Amino acid sequence: MKLFGAIEAGGTKFVCAAGTETGEIKERVSIATTTPEETMPEVIAFFNKHKVEAIGIGSFGPIDVDKNSPTYGNITTTPKLAWRDYPLLSSVQKEFSIPIGFNTDVNIAAMGEAVLGAAKGLDSCLYITVGTGIGAGAYIQGELLQGLTHPEMGHILVRRHPEDSYKGRCPYHGDCLEGLAAGPAIEERWGTKAAELSNNDKVWEMEGYYIAQALMQYILILSPKKIILGGGVMNQEQVLEYINKYLKEFLNGYLEFPQVSTDMGSYIVRPGLGDNAGITGGLLLAKRVYEESK
Amino acid sequence: MKLFGAIEAGGTKFVCAAGTETGEIKERVSIATTTPEETMPEVIAFFNKHKVEAIGIGSFGPIDVDKNSPTYGNITTTPKLAWRDYPLLSSVQKEFSIPIGFNTDVNIAAMGEAVLGAAKGLDSCLYITVGTGIGAGAYIQGELLQGLTHPEMGHILVRRHPEDSYKGRCPYHGDCLEGLAAGPAIEERWGTKAAELSNNDKVWEMEGYYIAQALMQYILILSPKKIILGGGVMNQEQVLEYINKYLKEFLNGYLEFPQVSTDMGSYIVRPGLGDNAGITGGLLLAKRVYEESK
Repeated sequence: MKLFGAIEAGGTKFVCAAGTETGEIKERVSIATTTPEETMPEVIAFFNKHKVEAIGIGSFGPIDVDKNSPTYGNITTTPKLAWRDYPLLSSVQKEFSIPIGFNTDVNIAAMGEAVLGAAKGLDSCLYITVGTGIGAGAYIQGELLQGLTHPEMGHILVRRHPEDSYKGRCPYHGDCLEGLAAGPAIEERWGTKAAELSNNDKVWEMEGYYIAQALMQYILILSPKKIILGGGVMNQEQVLEYINKYLKEFLNGYLEFPQVSTDMGSYIVRPGLGDNAGITGGLLLAKRVYEESK
Repeated sequence: MKLFGAIEAGGTKFVCAAGTETGEIKERVSIATTTPEETMPEVIAFFNKHKVEAIGIGSFGPIDVDKNSPTYGNITTTPKLAWRDYPLLSSVQKEFSIPIGFNTDVNIAAMGEAVLGAAKGLDSCLYITVGTGIGAGAYIQGELLQGLTHPEMGHILVRRHPEDSYKGRCPYHGDCLEGLAAGPAIEERWGTKAAELSNNDKVWEMEGYYIAQALMQYILILSPKKIILGGGVMNQEQVLEYINKYLKEFLNGYLEFPQVSTDMGSYIVRPGLGDNAGITGGLLLAKRVYEESK
């Protein structure tokens, strides 16, 4: 079986892996995300050691995913200044003359979950991560969603919870979804780390209210066949109940599908691949670009 | 050149046409939407007279677009009781043994605009109609968007305009987008038909506020390459200015693309095909299912 490569480029670490198209990871390394000068040589060294047929990169964003753009493959306006305008794709391309795919970290996670994870067998799923930020990737009709650019679903507008007076912390939109519901917002609103608030029910009721609104918009606009919720905040399992409760309330019977009425528990789920959704999706993206290159 | 057929099945009229894959309409008829017993024989008669190679149907919804469903091709939970659960697709299929495509009226309009209209040459656009209801179709990466079901974008939640105390009129959600911003909501809020409110600036400022919010959500979630605004309410051209103003304000520089900053006027546009977007898309859908059948 052929060996493929994956790079999950995150804000705190780069995970590199070599594995198979069935998602079996043979080798893996985790490299701290410091500066391109420090981080990238280790990434290159990994793939010098583990020869692969193709590589799939899933990167933190925003990134340029437009193949016709002169800056295709770059990380663009990230607040991580060392990585701003960094040509991630071409820095790998110039070392290895093999097919290399490039997309967002959350899009490849959606692909991983759709092909080998919780949405296995479906041609469509949404992968949402709620952590230090809120991001979502979409695998729709068998393709990673892309248009003018990649989805930026974390920044949609939401209605305020009636008891929430916290101003929000998104530097662009203040109280957009990410500004109100990502980990740092929870921490700032309640004055305590989210992980230490497990027993404060009001925290998770409010969080569920916001995430449910987001899901309502995503469902009405994209109609995914499954929704997968990952990220640190979602480790607070009690949020899921509130999400289901509020989503049902908001939709109010409008969509007559068991997925959003009687069977929500199997429609809105945790990742089937756990923390491996992204890196598995990277292997699958590598396989896809490899096949397209033939 | 081959002759294809199109049916644009609307709530007030069915338009049937025979034409070419380049969108040239050779024959056309408009039939009142009363009951299936009255309307459908006229539809069948049209295609008995005009022999076509395939037919593309775009229907008012909600409809069942899942090819694996036993009720594929049906109109489902429409408030038009005579058409509820009506098997529109199969009623045409049983008369003509040719390939027949089936989708929503707004999805085929998006296809028409993407292939031959305002988004010509792009593989992606969003077509939104603001009239007696609000609906949107999406042509994404060269395909009509579909997942669990077709998009239902008119029912997304929006934040209230600070000066709006109107309760909204969506039977499911009250003050969702359609409940606050479709034609009947404008009429009920202001006590006058929308068409007679042209000179009341506050009406269109409020309308622009709501539509801009919707566009923000659609852009962040779907990232269409062009947005086309059709429907009766959009004939009030002054709305467009408010939409652009508020969308810019809401996004607040988050997406650094000329389309949503300096060049919004060529990104958010009126239909290039005017009232023919749907019927043209029907011909294109017919051509597509014809080719798939070969």
